[in-house]
Amino acid sequence: VSRSGEFDWISRYLAPLSGPTSFGLKDDAALLDAPDGKAVVVTQDAIAESVHFLPGDPPDQVARKALRVNISDIVAKGAMPFAYSLALGVPDRWQDEDMALFCQGLADDQQQYGLNLSGGDTYRSPAGLTVAVTMFGAVEQDEYKSRIGAVDGDVVVVSGCIGDAALGLKVATGELNCPDTDRAALLRAYRLPDPPAPLAGAVARFASASMDISDGLIGDCRKLCVASSVSAKIDRTAIPLSDPAQRLVEQDQTLWQTIISGGDDYQVLATVAPSRLSAFQICAEQCALSVHPIGVITNGKSGSVTLDIDGDEVSIGDDSFSHF
Amino acid sequence: VSRSGEFDWISRYLAPLSGPTSFGLKDDAALLDAPDGKAVVVTQDAIAESVHFLPGDPPDQVARKALRVNISDIVAKGAMPFAYSLALGVPDRWQDEDMALFCQGLADDQQQYGLNLSGGDTYRSPAGLTVAVTMFGAVEQDEYKSRIGAVDGDVVVVSGCIGDAALGLKVATGELNCPDTDRAALLRAYRLPDPPAPLAGAVARFASASMDISDGLIGDCRKLCVASSVSAKIDRTAIPLSDPAQRLVEQDQTLWQTIISGGDDYQVLATVAPSRLSAFQICAEQCALSVHPIGVITNGKSGSVTLDIDGDEVSIGDDSFSHF
Repeated sequence: VSRSGEFDWISRYLAPLSGPTSFGLKDDAALLDAPDGKAVVVTQDAIAESVHFLPGDPPDQVARKALRVNISDIVAKGAMPFAYSLALGVPDRWQDEDMALFCQGLADDQQQYGLNLSGGDTYRSPAGLTVAVTMFGAVEQDEYKSRIGAVDGDVVVVSGCIGDAALGLKVATGELNCPDTDRAALLRAYRLPDPPAPLAGAVARFASASMDISDGLIGDCRKLCVASSVSAKIDRTAIPLSDPAQRLVEQDQTLWQTIISGGDDYQVLATVAPSRLSAFQICAEQCALSVHPIGVITNGKSGSVTLDIDGDEVSIGDDSFSHF
Repeated sequence: VSRSGEFDWISRYLAPLSGPTSFGLKDDAALLDAPDGKAVVVTQDAIAESVHFLPGDPPDQVARKALRVNISDIVAKGAMPFAYSLALGVPDRWQDEDMALFCQGLADDQQQYGLNLSGGDTYRSPAGLTVAVTMFGAVEQDEYKSRIGAVDGDVVVVSGCIGDAALGLKVATGELNCPDTDRAALLRAYRLPDPPAPLAGAVARFASASMDISDGLIGDCRKLCVASSVSAKIDRTAIPLSDPAQRLVEQDQTLWQTIISGGDDYQVLATVAPSRLSAFQICAEQCALSVHPIGVITNGKSGSVTLDIDGDEVSIGDDSFSHF
């Protein structure tokens, strides 16, 4: 009797159950095989108290986080989120005001992202709040972006800034100190991801492969490289940082590890042919977003990611990653 | 500070968030507003350990129950289920063999019902197994059956037999004794619902309104009547019973209460114009299923359900129901 990891379970037990448009469950979302016209993209991520958020986190922020971790998946597929379904495990301690606050969070983000609630379920969850969201997006049939498709010479790009949420978690747990204004910005990044929803159209038009960054930039980049059977070279100095992150890392270079592997970014990681990069960036700017080139795809060992640190090339392989 | 019931919460907080094709969250499922061709129907029901099933229940049966309580919703809308998404909260005690058994249950029902797993999520659930399934079905745009549409003179029909699962729960908890063969059949009905999937096409063609029976025949009939602004008269002697249920109720007439209000039937409750009843029944027989007329719709008080018990008409209103 043994217990393997979650990813083993998915590939061993769940992937054989998946259909032809689910990419072997190796992608962030699946095409629903909708008979005609636009394809419906669906993704489902659950967040649970004491696992994905802290018991004291405000219900409205938990609600918005539950939506946004799913929106991030949809957008990275080049699709526009339009509806979601909700399975809500309600803790015994909840009163009307908690439910109201939770739903206010849903309402705020429905307005911000143009969503409707399609249905769902509520049930007693004595062990604490659990929120399972199934999110639906629409995309032209041939514009769904998977992790497969990156080729030699493509530019690796990311949206927004990287690392704020991971630094914010360290601030929340007291591991990291910084000035009050920076502290507020980093905590907010952890509690309330800001997925680049308006970028969906540009991803659909210009990316060769795409995914969202949820488990750390380098680790997720490796997943994309594995799916596309390519390598990547990332230039650490090109990784976009917020001002608070920049200030922190200048004082303590070891925080780079947190920034590039900490996770919870919920930004887009995409690859783009060099000839299409400027068009991609112009599209992003038109919706007041930024995308930054941070490296290149090469024909190296599948899944190998090399990090250029001030001229030194550090190879980050499968085995070494968890000790990086 | 107060805490109202789950249904209050849904109507008060969640329904205002729902879109135009979600029937104010008062139906079992929602039309996904798919741009062209067939509509995608989606429903999401979660089941949690110690709430919806017992900690000792075999994982494969839990998996199949999680699918079937959702299949039931889809079929009652006149739609054919074709895919589902799964958010799986895994208990700490689970080993590989538990996960394998769970997935074998999924695989068995995927084959039986023609389903694919579209994606989902797994996460740690220290308090016990939690299974949130989002199920997708396909239906012609104008054939989705809601709870709205029953009119004066329509016949009320149910598929299969009623009450076995509720009696099975009483058997499981030791409240009820019966011979071993009956015992096995009733326990199975509780643990493994048998929704009438092949009936979807007939529901789509012939029903004026439809829903699945999950919370008890009479209570669910009242919900349909409320949605359609009509009354119903149900003939108790016409309610189809299995042989084990028939034997039990002959010995103890008070078990009728369990049968008509106990829940977990996961059969279809539909209304049909009298002129279409025989065609509906022939369609059902062609797929080896039965539908039985059990009453009529009348233009009485909205949501009023009257039960004819051997010639005595018993009115079952909103208030009296919980004390019935």
